[in-house]
Amino acid sequence: MKVGVFDSGVGGLTVAKSLQQSGLFSEITYFGDTARVPYGNKDKATVTRYALEAVEFFNGADVDCVVVACNTVSVTALEAMQQFSNKPVYGVLEPGVMALQQLGTVTKQTRVLIIATRSTIASGAYQHRIQALGVEQMDAIATPLFVPIVEEALFDGPILQETMRHYFSSLTKPDVVLLGCTHFPLIAEQIAQYFGGVATIHSGEAMVAWLQQHLELPKQYAQTPIRILASENVEAVKRTAKHWGLIL
Amino acid sequence: MKVGVFDSGVGGLTVAKSLQQSGLFSEITYFGDTARVPYGNKDKATVTRYALEAVEFFNGADVDCVVVACNTVSVTALEAMQQFSNKPVYGVLEPGVMALQQLGTVTKQTRVLIIATRSTIASGAYQHRIQALGVEQMDAIATPLFVPIVEEALFDGPILQETMRHYFSSLTKPDVVLLGCTHFPLIAEQIAQYFGGVATIHSGEAMVAWLQQHLELPKQYAQTPIRILASENVEAVKRTAKHWGLIL
Repeated sequence: MKVGVFDSGVGGLTVAKSLQQSGLFSEITYFGDTARVPYGNKDKATVTRYALEAVEFFNGADVDCVVVACNTVSVTALEAMQQFSNKPVYGVLEPGVMALQQLGTVTKQTRVLIIATRSTIASGAYQHRIQALGVEQMDAIATPLFVPIVEEALFDGPILQETMRHYFSSLTKPDVVLLGCTHFPLIAEQIAQYFGGVATIHSGEAMVAWLQQHLELPKQYAQTPIRILASENVEAVKRTAKHWGLIL
Repeated sequence: MKVGVFDSGVGGLTVAKSLQQSGLFSEITYFGDTARVPYGNKDKATVTRYALEAVEFFNGADVDCVVVACNTVSVTALEAMQQFSNKPVYGVLEPGVMALQQLGTVTKQTRVLIIATRSTIASGAYQHRIQALGVEQMDAIATPLFVPIVEEALFDGPILQETMRHYFSSLTKPDVVLLGCTHFPLIAEQIAQYFGGVATIHSGEAMVAWLQQHLELPKQYAQTPIRILASENVEAVKRTAKHWGLIL
């Protein structure tokens, strides 16, 4: 099975990396909308318009399904994409919620922290799904500064530490942190440590588990080639991909 | 005289504020490309394409000239804009360099620090112009994290302090800092203080001085109305404008 991956920029490479390592796919075609990145502070109407342009691209591409890596798109424009796509389109919202459920110990007493872009948090999509699991203790906060910090490759150090303090210092310690933005897996360890060691949920790993379960795909490919496309500066995306450990 | 102001998003409101306070113009029409902001990490080709779309808008708008508030556009796409515009287009590069000259004491020994987005620094435009003034001691660094920090309204505090340390700690103290991005005037005081009190050059003020000198405009308007347009979420731009002290 050939999979397309759509993202607003380079962040979705964290999801593409999980897909590449999964052995479930024969080929990956990644498209990042680097000419208009980031989507996280933008309107639903704008994000939907951009997402439908991506649908047009993937409708004509040699892929069997499309994974939306970007959380902002997954919570604001997934239905519109599904409506106009000629192949199945999967977002990261359901997989993230499934991963939370499968931690095994989610009860009323579990305290969940959701961190994401402003648009993702404002949509309420994660909050509604997680409340539906019976979780009663939840914080959901927009942490937009983590995105440029990761893009500047400041994966640790005083700027990240001060930014975590800025966003987290007034929160009660969570049991699990749902990383609701593709950039955040790159600072997952630091976030877990900030809270003294907590579980984190990574969209890419969650997506692999979800696809394996829902499509009943066997792990059969030792190597999955990835083709990288972007609306500008594809060379920069390829450099980031290598830097983040994908095999080009 | 009616002036159009083009910017990639909200940052150019710092320039629009200077124009509004100048008394030189009867009316301001501001257009921010919020649907595709930021431009600062994007390619010259992409920025030029977006800038030419703005030209198309201003060609049909009721303005007598266009001010490009965005430094990234001013250094990468000004000539293309001038080529296709049916009215004069002014960028912030020349005014910034003129403001530096008019500080009066620029000599070989003056140490200038230029801070801007990645694209603006990479273009070398400020560096070439300032070298042409005979300045021999110059640092030019990309400080992209200041942009989201200002957009998050973190005008002071530990995140800004750590970010200044990150960018500035290895530099020799400058005599003057050229703020080569529209967002930076909002943290000009903190930057000046970081270096123990230095002069800073603000694109908006520099543009007013330059326009007054080159167009010989009299200061005649007690109040300049501003019309704000944006490629998405114009209400958010208006809120920022009020917050930053423009009179709507």
